Amino acid sequence: MIQVTVWNEFRHEKTDEAVKKVYPEGIHQQIAQFLKEDDFSVRTATLDEPEHGLTEEVLANTDVLIWWGHVAHQEVSDEIVQRVHQCVLEGMGLVVLHSGHMSKIFMKLMGTSCDLKWREAQEHCRIWTVAPSHPIVEGIGEYIELEQEEMYGEHFDIPTPDDLIFISWYPGGEVFRSGCTYHRGNGKIFYFQPGHETYPSYYNKEVQKVIKNGVRWCRPTQNAYPNYGHHEPLESITNKKGTEQ
Amino acid sequence: MIQVTVWNEFRHEKTDEAVKKVYPEGIHQQIAQFLKEDDFSVRTATLDEPEHGLTEEVLANTDVLIWWGHVAHQEVSDEIVQRVHQCVLEGMGLVVLHSGHMSKIFMKLMGTSCDLKWREAQEHCRIWTVAPSHPIVEGIGEYIELEQEEMYGEHFDIPTPDDLIFISWYPGGEVFRSGCTYHRGNGKIFYFQPGHETYPSYYNKEVQKVIKNGVRWCRPTQNAYPNYGHHEPLESITNKKGTEQ
Amino acid sequence: MIQVTVWNEFRHEKTDEAVKKVYPEGIHQQIAQFLKEDDFSVRTATLDEPEHGLTEEVLANTDVLIWWGHVAHQEVSDEIVQRVHQCVLEGMGLVVLHSGHMSKIFMKLMGTSCDLKWREAQEHCRIWTVAPSHPIVEGIGEYIELEQEEMYGEHFDIPTPDDLIFISWYPGGEVFRSGCTYHRGNGKIFYFQPGHETYPSYYNKEVQKVIKNGVRWCRPTQNAYPNYGHHEPLESITNKKGTEQ
Amino acid sequence: MIQVTVWNEFRHEKTDEAVKKVYPEGIHQQIAQFLKEDDFSVRTATLDEPEHGLTEEVLANTDVLIWWGHVAHQEVSDEIVQRVHQCVLEGMGLVVLHSGHMSKIFMKLMGTSCDLKWREAQEHCRIWTVAPSHPIVEGIGEYIELEQEEMYGEHFDIPTPDDLIFISWYPGGEVFRSGCTYHRGNGKIFYFQPGHETYPSYYNKEVQKVIKNGVRWCRPTQNAYPNYGHHEPLESITNKKGTEQ
Repeated sequence: MIQVTVWNEFRHEKTDEAVKKVYPEGIHQQIAQFLKEDDFSVRTATLDEPEHGLTEEVLANTDVLIWWGHVAHQEVSDEIVQRVHQCVLEGMGLVVLHSGHMSKIFMKLMGTSCDLKWREAQEHCRIWTVAPSHPIVEGIGEYIELEQEEMYGEHFDIPTPDDLIFISWYPGGEVFRSGCTYHRGNGKIFYFQPGHETYPSYYNKEVQKVIKNGVRWCRPTQNAYPNYGHHEPLESITNKKGTEQ
Repeated sequence: MIQVTVWNEFRHEKTDEAVKKVYPEGIHQQIAQFLKEDDFSVRTATLDEPEHGLTEEVLANTDVLIWWGHVAHQEVSDEIVQRVHQCVLEGMGLVVLHSGHMSKIFMKLMGTSCDLKWREAQEHCRIWTVAPSHPIVEGIGEYIELEQEEMYGEHFDIPTPDDLIFISWYPGGEVFRSGCTYHRGNGKIFYFQPGHETYPSYYNKEVQKVIKNGVRWCRPTQNAYPNYGHHEPLESITNKKGTEQ
Repeated sequence: MIQVTVWNEFRHEKTDEAVKKVYPEGIHQQIAQFLKEDDFSVRTATLDEPEHGLTEEVLANTDVLIWWGHVAHQEVSDEIVQRVHQCVLEGMGLVVLHSGHMSKIFMKLMGTSCDLKWREAQEHCRIWTVAPSHPIVEGIGEYIELEQEEMYGEHFDIPTPDDLIFISWYPGGEVFRSGCTYHRGNGKIFYFQPGHETYPSYYNKEVQKVIKNGVRWCRPTQNAYPNYGHHEPLESITNKKGTEQ
Repeated sequence: MIQVTVWNEFRHEKTDEAVKKVYPEGIHQQIAQFLKEDDFSVRTATLDEPEHGLTEEVLANTDVLIWWGHVAHQEVSDEIVQRVHQCVLEGMGLVVLHSGHMSKIFMKLMGTSCDLKWREAQEHCRIWTVAPSHPIVEGIGEYIELEQEEMYGEHFDIPTPDDLIFISWYPGGEVFRSGCTYHRGNGKIFYFQPGHETYPSYYNKEVQKVIKNGVRWCRPTQNAYPNYGHHEPLESITNKKGTEQ
């Protein structure tokens, strides 16, 4: 069974009535709840817990980490970011949601500013599937429509995705690469755009399905971590180049 | 100087008044004209010429071939398609425009159906740059707006582009990967969406700039065609694997 | 349960004693046998059967097709190639082995010559994993060593792989991109190099594991085939561009 | 004229006789010298200069920065790394050579450990071209042979390259992705493996040609830096989804 840890900053929900109304228990609890409908073992962790809830023990028992953050990216300690980064390189999957695009861990893994255009305007959006053979779109049709979502627009300053899964359309005239995968070390990463804190995106069945598919896609490959450093030759290297056989 | 051959089906312009009004000399002549403003050596070729104007001599003197076709894809002979295909594999660049997505040569190079959604509805479109560091967008801003263009929508059944340069937005709710590059053999290919025959897209200065940039990007690399077939070893292969040195 | 059809040209095994000795029942039977150890439903098909064993009914009940061919690529009928091609675009997985790189179906899907360097010299080879997070290398270490394999060398004239999984080393001084994945339409394709007919590569447990992983990776995504053709707008397109709201 | 700054750690050459013998003026001077043969404007910068020679003024006048470092990666100040990083995102090209794979700037741009296997054993190596249509291999044949080079072996812990240009073969049995390109923000990056400090790789004409081609490929695209942040709609967003036109 895939062990998932859902990490949430969990600040908006405590102070903002509009957010509390949508996610009374916190975004992490809503995500945990729909994941539990499937065969996932789920726990949660939040910023204000000791070590942000991401102790070495928790991470050692995490196959895939889901990340939601927004206003408090800078409060995440560099030490924990370094710890999560090392776990990803060693094989832990990472699903980064919505405003997590500017989290320290995502920026560290991408190497770019991860910046973008944005607008909160009660717009609907249409998330087009452009990779119909990818397991992350299993069970999803040609597009997902959300009644309300924050606009995120190009240019999105990310490295070329290994797989571009979704492109979003917004009525205000923008497009956005809203579903992207990456490989980093032994780990796999999936970024997915929906999830503004005042809109009920994580109650949407198709968004839930994509996140579940993403978690499955990100699960660690059971594979030895590669050896690095000095390496003895596997062949005799006394021979010179040429065809003197 | 880069030698460009502009190939056009040249049928709509002869029979359809609306097209004739926009491109009285044919789409190929308009493309040739703006290319000549720069340091390109330009000739044209059309379907109804002998060998569709693509004789071995013409192709031997073509660095980059531009392709526009629509209603008569099936009239292009398989022999000429095979000839152009071989030229691309040997290094000739290919710029495929608009409805050329369903040309025999593009489909043969892609290996997919190259199908898509479409609609002619006098819509405007907005072509977003998603690869700001790519030489094809040199001098282009964040987006290009066209007053009228045919809608082309996802899913566009193409292989994953080597570089995804542009994504288009349409008011009817669709998105489209409208600028894509590919490498095939020694050759480079650029697909660019604008160019419906009844809209004046090839008079647009930014569209012209993108096509010029695309031609430059597609120019052949001065590089020997690789050797294939039986290959003598470059090293002694009498040694066995192991560390017996 | 994933339904696999193992297709083999099945000619060498009938006429060449050296091959018959290694694969007395044919390469397809050996591949079928190790697949049956896992939870796959397996059937076989060969060139000399009616419709090459690839009737519409067989293909309709095939999730993943494995392809081995060598001397008789030209005897595969274009009609069957077209049929298999359509199945791949509609979602059927395809695993192409060894000399299948020059099969009509692989070349049609790639759009290139698929040519390469080769040599039969009883060489060993070492197949290095370069994508440690990919599910196709699940359970595989840093490299696979084969006592004997045909040398295949660069340049391998293929499109840029969507995922480059393995790179092979040969004692004669060559390298080869020996494990490559592609997406085409709704289908997924995996090319894997080992399998010269006179060497026992398909008895190697690690080669078997890679092929099993490859079949799992190629399984169809349960997803609607996209709609193509004329498309009614999903939004009102009466609005003009601008910010007149 | 492309303005190139060649940055070198410049430590080995001061203290190690074997290195001093090969590069008496420093690796940077040898690289600068062959670049000056072409139409490049070249300056150098080294670790022990104020601000490591990479003042804001120098970087503002640098189109492409070449980076060679090895034993003193940790002595490069985080402030300068941040400054160079920002320049790359804004469009400056970066050519990273040899042991620069573990430099702070390369690791920051990649997001991975950038680790690998290595061995100094006076081995020769063969650098195979796998992207014959790429401008970085202009004028280069099927492979480059170096009489002596440090072995760098897989797994090389880097993100999937945007273009994989070269794969190296070593007699000890290893392979290595030795020429890789990346896009980050508005900037382009080229990693190239040759250049161990005790071997004369930078006197090799083909290595020089690749570096020159790499510099040209990395030159900034004359393109506005994208806008990020809050974005007013470009279209009226009063319309609702649907087909109510």
